[in-house]
Amino acid sequence: MTIAAALRNALGDVVDVTENALEAARADRSGHSSVGRPLAVVHAESVEHVQQTMRIATDTRTPVVVRGAGTGLAGGANAGPGEIVLSMMRMNRVIEVRPDDLFAVVEPGILNAELNTLLAAHGLWWPPDPASRDISSVGGNIATGAGGLLCAKYGVVRDAVLGVDVVLADGRLLHLGHRSVKGVTGLDLTSLMIGSEGTLGVVVGATLKLRRLVVGDICTLTALFPNVRTAAAGSTAVTASGVQPAIMELMDAKALTAVHALLSLPAPSAGTSQLTIQTDGPAARAEADRIAAILQECGGEVTLTYDRDEGERLLAIRRSMHGAMAALGTTLIEDVSVPRSALPAMYDEIARIEVAYNLAIPTVAHAGDGNLHPNFIFDGDVVPENIWAAADDLFRSAIRLGGTLTGEHGIGMLKSRWLAEELGDDQWQLQRQIKAVFDPLGILNPGKVFTRA
Amino acid sequence: MTIAAALRNALGDVVDVTENALEAARADRSGHSSVGRPLAVVHAESVEHVQQTMRIATDTRTPVVVRGAGTGLAGGANAGPGEIVLSMMRMNRVIEVRPDDLFAVVEPGILNAELNTLLAAHGLWWPPDPASRDISSVGGNIATGAGGLLCAKYGVVRDAVLGVDVVLADGRLLHLGHRSVKGVTGLDLTSLMIGSEGTLGVVVGATLKLRRLVVGDICTLTALFPNVRTAAAGSTAVTASGVQPAIMELMDAKALTAVHALLSLPAPSAGTSQLTIQTDGPAARAEADRIAAILQECGGEVTLTYDRDEGERLLAIRRSMHGAMAALGTTLIEDVSVPRSALPAMYDEIARIEVAYNLAIPTVAHAGDGNLHPNFIFDGDVVPENIWAAADDLFRSAIRLGGTLTGEHGIGMLKSRWLAEELGDDQWQLQRQIKAVFDPLGILNPGKVFTRA
Repeated sequence: MTIAAALRNALGDVVDVTENALEAARADRSGHSSVGRPLAVVHAESVEHVQQTMRIATDTRTPVVVRGAGTGLAGGANAGPGEIVLSMMRMNRVIEVRPDDLFAVVEPGILNAELNTLLAAHGLWWPPDPASRDISSVGGNIATGAGGLLCAKYGVVRDAVLGVDVVLADGRLLHLGHRSVKGVTGLDLTSLMIGSEGTLGVVVGATLKLRRLVVGDICTLTALFPNVRTAAAGSTAVTASGVQPAIMELMDAKALTAVHALLSLPAPSAGTSQLTIQTDGPAARAEADRIAAILQECGGEVTLTYDRDEGERLLAIRRSMHGAMAALGTTLIEDVSVPRSALPAMYDEIARIEVAYNLAIPTVAHAGDGNLHPNFIFDGDVVPENIWAAADDLFRSAIRLGGTLTGEHGIGMLKSRWLAEELGDDQWQLQRQIKAVFDPLGILNPGKVFTRA
Repeated sequence: MTIAAALRNALGDVVDVTENALEAARADRSGHSSVGRPLAVVHAESVEHVQQTMRIATDTRTPVVVRGAGTGLAGGANAGPGEIVLSMMRMNRVIEVRPDDLFAVVEPGILNAELNTLLAAHGLWWPPDPASRDISSVGGNIATGAGGLLCAKYGVVRDAVLGVDVVLADGRLLHLGHRSVKGVTGLDLTSLMIGSEGTLGVVVGATLKLRRLVVGDICTLTALFPNVRTAAAGSTAVTASGVQPAIMELMDAKALTAVHALLSLPAPSAGTSQLTIQTDGPAARAEADRIAAILQECGGEVTLTYDRDEGERLLAIRRSMHGAMAALGTTLIEDVSVPRSALPAMYDEIARIEVAYNLAIPTVAHAGDGNLHPNFIFDGDVVPENIWAAADDLFRSAIRLGGTLTGEHGIGMLKSRWLAEELGDDQWQLQRQIKAVFDPLGILNPGKVFTRA
């Protein structure tokens, strides 16, 4: 009996071998695809479905690729020949909302934005806000340790998960973590699961740490600067002032020009770079006024609004970045992160790399936390070697500045060849050994993260 | 050659075999001691000292107990016969403070309060504030995953560490984590180290996530209630209101009476329980006013001050809790944590246990985060069996209410026999296997955490 038939015998209709389903599971949003189709997609509807799938996978030594919404940017959920795809998107219920205890228990397939719409009715929210929030699942956010625009003020996924329920490679179900604010019983396996990219187990439930919706104004500023260096210096001045914006985004000239073209706005003058900043909470107006003064002192041309809708219109320019890049060609979106004071130096490195490799690298940065997304644009669907060479230079530059090769997208398949360089061989080996404790047969997402290309 | 002689050969004067040093290493502040003296204390002054000690320990299969300031409450750092004590207290330098990047790199032996005095000169602080902050080390705070009074608003140690440098059992040095706000390269071994209680490796350096000092007022309230139930309901009402106090502490009648006796204050009337609350930041006064109104509605007799010094005097009653308990006898300080809405129910359980076991259990709670410290008082230095029976009942009650048997003190030697019950056997075994990856010879803090008594 084939694996697909065994799955079908055990699980019935939730096993999908249609061409559409198999094709869709080959790729995420990284622009990369696996070399061929996986053997089946299991649309799990319950923990029991997940356990049965993993038992069959263990019995038959079949690799399993867990998928959320497929919006990842590192190829971590791309499935290929001989692999079972375990899709979590039908497990999308909110099990429990506890407003007084500020937590919710959810299944992994719920979309981030849908969850937040539901929570808003309770006056609550879950802060992680990747740019993909409308289309990405909570389980995927957990698997990648996602970040987003609000992280300097409100933290990353790791700061917003109290516990996870996990099905191990052999089908056993574990409950990790706590429902209380504090808890230190044994090792913190919850944090270990966050960002583990499908290599340790299948997250089938999560206890999320919530916040109450922010009361007060939301104020938005944009500031235009003559070049990216002065814009980066402006963001550094805001950080140094001690005022903590909710959002602080930096677009360099190439990024800004591309978005203006996409939105049919007048082209900005050469070199013009833009900061987009949002403050929120009871002191939002005072903070926005102070930031405006700081940016003007730094030579910025400031637009400020206390109006939420007008603020969303200002933010639309930043939010159109991905569309603008897609309009130029296939995009490799990079994701280096550095200590925030190194942001100007990292922009200098990008300028150097553009010259050295004769490339244009439009870059947007979460300037409040030092996370940059340089975009490499190319034709076709295979990253050209000179772009990988430039990316390699980019990663080494970030590490040299005290940073990391991925702030929030993860390693997946695209960056596994650089992982050992950042971690060091000893730590890399240790991480592989920990992976082997969870997955002794190596059936969970093989070829990703811990594989040297 | 004895182990002590081998250490002395390699390390010279930092190896201490004086009776005083060996005796001191037998106990922490839990009231428990090991059965006898360890074989030597190494006062490490450098990473190299730690590496050499671990190499000798590995070569000779000798157990190593890492110690900070010895202020733990679970016996996790108690060292006994045949064990090397590795004291980190001489490694107490601040290596680097980066105000713009909001991090500092420190050695583990620096005291929490000393670090914060140094940071204050930069306008910065490291939020974790265990009640022991004046006498506990940052390394010990990391080893236990410490909490404290400010956690509901400002988080626990796990939220305030970006990376750690770790010497493994075999002497290799690893650099875990990041210097950037975001970073998701591989598994989160930094979080795995936090709260691992000396079982995985020796923390020889830490990159701490800092905050800017809070600007604005600090306001303090006390509220007296006729009994602990109404006081707990008052704290729940504050939490439900959405106002987030910096501190919210609850003392039951037995705790309050004991402190009043210690401080020679008039005895409170029977049953009287007290909430002590502090607000901070730009909105501190408005928040304190709102909390005062809420507590009065709940039947509380409120005292409110906007004055910092007067506030400290009000807080002194709460801060005298440990002294008041010590004056009554030997104390077993328990540490259960529950979802905050379960706080009144947990107090009901404590009242039931007091009757069932014929004990008085003065209890103080970090009411803002649902972490309770019930105190068992006894004579002598061995916990009587009926107190362990009552503690057992207490732990099971907390777990039944969705909580945990330790919120911030850890497992150490005192709670290892309950660990598997909370984790479940599968998770407990998995944690032991992870421990074995780090420490295949089992020389790091044997008999603690993962040992079933």
